[in-house]
Parts: sequence; C-alpha cells; structure tokens
Amino acid sequence: MTTPPDDARPTALLAMSRTTFDDLFDAPRRDRLHALAAIAAPARVEELSSPPAITRLHDVEVLITGWGTPALNADVLAAAPRLRAVLHAGGSVKGHISQEFWDAGVLVTSAAEANAIPVAEFTLATILLEGKRSPRYAEGYAGERTASGRWRSRIPPSVNFGGTVGVVGLSRVGRRVAGLLRPFDIEVLASDPLVDPRQAALLGVELVELDELLVRSDIVTLHAPELPETHHLLDARRLGLLRQDAVLVNTARGSLIDAEALVARCRDGRMRAILDVTDPEPLPSDSPLFTTPGIVLTPHIAGAMHPETHRLADAVLDELDHLAHGRPPRHPVDRRSLEYIA
Amino acid sequence: MTTPPDDARPTALLAMSRTTFDDLFDAPRRDRLHALAAIAAPARVEELSSPPAITRLHDVEVLITGWGTPALNADVLAAAPRLRAVLHAGGSVKGHISQEFWDAGVLVTSAAEANAIPVAEFTLATILLEGKRSPRYAEGYAGERTASGRWRSRIPPSVNFGGTVGVVGLSRVGRRVAGLLRPFDIEVLASDPLVDPRQAALLGVELVELDELLVRSDIVTLHAPELPETHHLLDARRLGLLRQDAVLVNTARGSLIDAEALVARCRDGRMRAILDVTDPEPLPSDSPLFTTPGIVLTPHIAGAMHPETHRLADAVLDELDHLAHGRPPRHPVDRRSLEYIA
Repeated sequence: MTTPPDDARPTALLAMSRTTFDDLFDAPRRDRLHALAAIAAPARVEELSSPPAITRLHDVEVLITGWGTPALNADVLAAAPRLRAVLHAGGSVKGHISQEFWDAGVLVTSAAEANAIPVAEFTLATILLEGKRSPRYAEGYAGERTASGRWRSRIPPSVNFGGTVGVVGLSRVGRRVAGLLRPFDIEVLASDPLVDPRQAALLGVELVELDELLVRSDIVTLHAPELPETHHLLDARRLGLLRQDAVLVNTARGSLIDAEALVARCRDGRMRAILDVTDPEPLPSDSPLFTTPGIVLTPHIAGAMHPETHRLADAVLDELDHLAHGRPPRHPVDRRSLEYIA
Repeated sequence: MTTPPDDARPTALLAMSRTTFDDLFDAPRRDRLHALAAIAAPARVEELSSPPAITRLHDVEVLITGWGTPALNADVLAAAPRLRAVLHAGGSVKGHISQEFWDAGVLVTSAAEANAIPVAEFTLATILLEGKRSPRYAEGYAGERTASGRWRSRIPPSVNFGGTVGVVGLSRVGRRVAGLLRPFDIEVLASDPLVDPRQAALLGVELVELDELLVRSDIVTLHAPELPETHHLLDARRLGLLRQDAVLVNTARGSLIDAEALVARCRDGRMRAILDVTDPEPLPSDSPLFTTPGIVLTPHIAGAMHPETHRLADAVLDELDHLAHGRPPRHPVDRRSLEYIA
C-alpha cells in the first residue's frame, strides 16, 4: 500500500453503528482508513436522514457501510451528489441499497469473499469431524463411560477415506469448501444450476443433479442462496433420498430446509444435522430442533466473528486503496447477480 | 503397479488376527497382495509358535504384521532362516519386534505415515472448530435456548484470524498438522528438541521452547512420543503457563498430561481440553475427566479406523511392490530412532 497524495484521497463517510465500527476497525486499520480517505467530522453516522448526516453527505464520494447500516434509499442518493461508491464491509448488499443507486451507476463493492472464509473453515472442520464420526464417539463414550461398549457397533464407518461430500451450491462459500477439501481423500460432488461441468472440473468437483448428489453423498453441505425457488430446497422427499447415517450441514440459510421433515428423520436415527442457521433466528425455545438427537445447533456464528471481522475491514480498505489510485475495484457487485445470489 | 514375474515374488506370511486382516484387506487389496507375493496356505496365522506356523516360517521371506500381531522374538527369527523383511501394517513397531531382528539386519517397515493422516485430520478439524469457539456456542445455545443470552459475552474471540497454535513435537503427525494449517490465517509455533530452526522454517513454523509455546499459544496440540522424559510433560506448572481460554488437544498419549492438574484448571474455567487419549485407557467410569466441564473425550479414535485402515494395507502393499522389484523400501524403520519415537 502506498498513501495517495492528500488531494487524491476520496472524501468518505462511515454509516454503521459504533459497535460495528469498533469491531471492524482496530487502531492500525483506523490509521490506514485515514491515510486512504479524507474523512471530515463526524466520521461515522448511524442514520442518514438527520440534518448533520445530510450535511456530511453533501460532499461525500465514498460511503462505507457495515452490518446494521441504515437503508441507502433515494433520499440518501439525492443528498449525495458526488457519491461514486458504496463499499460494504459485510456480505450481502441486497437488503440496504435501493434501486436508484444501481440506476445512477454508483459502484457497489462487498466483502462477501472475506466473509466466506470463516464459513468455509467452519464447514471444512465440521465435515472432517463428522466424517470421522467423532461427535458420535464422544457422545457414546460420555454416555456409557466405557471404551468397549456396544454403542460402538452402531457407529458407521469413517467418511474421510474414500467417502463422498456433496456441496449444494458453488457459491463463494461452496467453492471455498470444495477447494479446502482438495488435500483430503474425499470425493466431492456439487450441484449448482448456474455452473457448467467444465467450471466444476476446474474446481475439482463432479457436477451432478441435486437428487443424485443427495443419494450419493455421505455428508451434504448447503451453500445455496435464499430465493423463492430455494425455499425448503431440502423438503421431505429430498431428505428421504439421503443415505442412512448421512450428515447435513447448513451454514447458508435456515429456510433451505423443511425443519419438520428434518426432525422426523433425525429422530428416527437415520441422519444427523449440524445447523448454524435456522428459520426463524433466534429459534423459539420450544423448537424441537433443540431436543432432537443428532441435531447440533450453533447460533449463526460461522460467518466473521471478532477478530475475523478485521478481514471485512481489510476488504474495504483494499477497495479504498484501489479507488484512491484509480485502479478497478476488486469485488464489485454485479447488479444482475442480485437475482440469484445471497 | 506392475506384477512381478512369478519367480520374483517373495514368499510371504500374514501374522495378525482375522479381524485385523478383514479390516485391512478388502477384495481388491487381497488381489493385489496375491499378485505381489507368493503366499502358501495358511496365508495367515495368529501365533508363531505352533508346529504349522513354524513350518510356514521355514521358507518365508516377508512377514506382514498388524495390530495385535504376535511377538516377533528370537524363536521366530530362528524358525525363519530366509526372512528378509517385516512389513508392519500399523504405526509403532516398538512393542512386537525383538532385538535379534535388528541384529540380524532384517528390514522393518512401518505404516506410521499412513496412520498419521487421520490423526492430523482430526487435529486440524478440532483446532478449527475450537478456534472458532464453536463447541462453546453450541453448549451455550443448547443450555439457554436463546440466541441473545448473556452467555455469549463469556465466549472468547475466534483464534482463526491471527491466533496462535502451538504444535508440541514435530513428529510425523505434528509435521502433518503444521502442513494442514498452512492455508489458514493462524500463526504456528512448534517445540521439538530434535528439530533445528531451519527445519522448522521449512515446515512454516517458528521453533520455540516448550514453555514459550505454552505462554504464546491459544491452542496447543500434543504430538510428542511416550518416553520416560515426556511423562507428565504438561504438569501443573506447565499447564499454569497456558493463557486464559486456552485449548489443549491430545491425540498422542495420555501420559503426556498430568490429568489431575488438568481437571483442576478446566474446572476453574481457565481452559478446555480435547482428549482422544488418556492414561489409562479405557478410563475408569468414575474418572473426573468424564464430568469436568470443558473436557471432551473420545475413545482413541483419531488414528486409522475402518475404512481408513485401507491406507495401512496400501502402505504394506507398496512396500511389497518395492521389495518384489528390488527397489529401496519407502518407510524403513531406523533402529536408532526407536529410542525417541512413539
């Protein structure tokens, strides 16, 4: 990184809560932010409709947004005649940027790549431990307190030598999961309606239809977007295609799975499910997901958590660096992609 | 692989239980075994002292051993005048091969490399999930059934961006763990009295003294051999060097840790421990390790389990292939190494 001359630094404003800002930007990252952008006071606002915020918007070229950012609507755009770019220090930009920004040709970038890293890591680790059947051994050992109990005979063989993992959706996260699985002796299948077999081969995976993936996989991991056509993508029929002792991992969106059908299958001991996301979130405390054997819940933590959020700040700072030096953006959001991505 | 001419095939005998044999050699591997070696009946014996076994030993050039193999003592050697090699389809050969075999210059090979793979995989997965603090979130969510409970504030930050993992012992497994950690944003320290800093640098790790490793690491993973000088390597003093919220992973040998001191520190909420090995094994059912919060036990499963054991058979078949074709062995055991390896 080189520091641009003062007059080349774009004027910027941060629109996010104090908590998000403090989480993203530690002292070295704040220094880098101020080296790359001209930021008048107040540097950060939590809303974009009050007189002080509108005054700031008047000369702002770059808006830096994060989780819990205020909506960027037509009024905001109208108040920011010099706005060139919205740099989002988070994954999806679907929720907070209105149509007018795209129509006006404002550059929008996202840190979705940076947020994909911890999700893919969590998924890899879960696949390897579930593939080893380690949680089942831990549960059995804790429950019966003997290393030679009969429960061992009910534990299926390891998946980690010659087993099959199915990646549903070669999204940013899905592709990373496929890449992280390469050093292991595991066959990787993938299904994705937007990917062709040649692209899949480059990723080291075999592209198959979703139903075939479910039939052939020992472990299935979901990385599909939340769309009307992916609602209950894994319904009772598709869950019924899974093998005995299959493991389903969901770090994408809760609505992809018919939870009622899942509970029925897990309760019968036919499969396990590791769910970092549910529908709704948080779950009501009487949800059967909490009490069904073979279902493990985490509260939507696979994405960037402190200090992994620094990766999101770095992504924004890198975009700012490119912008200040007149280089093309690293991760621009393609407006057309909003129809089919998360 | 090419099949050697019939007269070049070494005569071989398997010395292991039926269970071990069935686990190691599936049909394709049995075919390969018979293509590479001349094996008279009985192909397999469970002991080496009965008249039929001694008759078989008389013309055997290669003994193939596995878990639960009978002791290879001076009587066995005397009964096998043509013996050239012992190929062990397991990790350590320390227990079952007597001094006379080494004195006679019999080649001994081991499948320890193949057995190191699943141990390193288990360790990597455990490090990434514990680094993410995922088990603590799962426990908290299950316990309080709310995604916004106060328990969250007690969970320490993720280790997986900028955290530090300490590898105690750059053994076969330790080296593999260091290698598997390379794609991640984690600093890796290692301690090993037999490794120099240049070797460590080639492995991508920083070599430090054990005490320094314990002070600096967020997660410590043990891969040291069981030797008189490593008994309770992690004693109360050294466990006291670990940071608040440190995680200790042991897939090596239970005797490396003073379990009583460990229980005290875990009970106080100062650390967690993931133990695949204990001293003794199996644990007595009243062991406090079963009931101490923050201690997770698995019953010595990190090593090769079915079908991962096929890797051990493949290792033996590869050695047999080299032997049949007059090529040097792939993983000969150096007699001198027996003093300091597992």
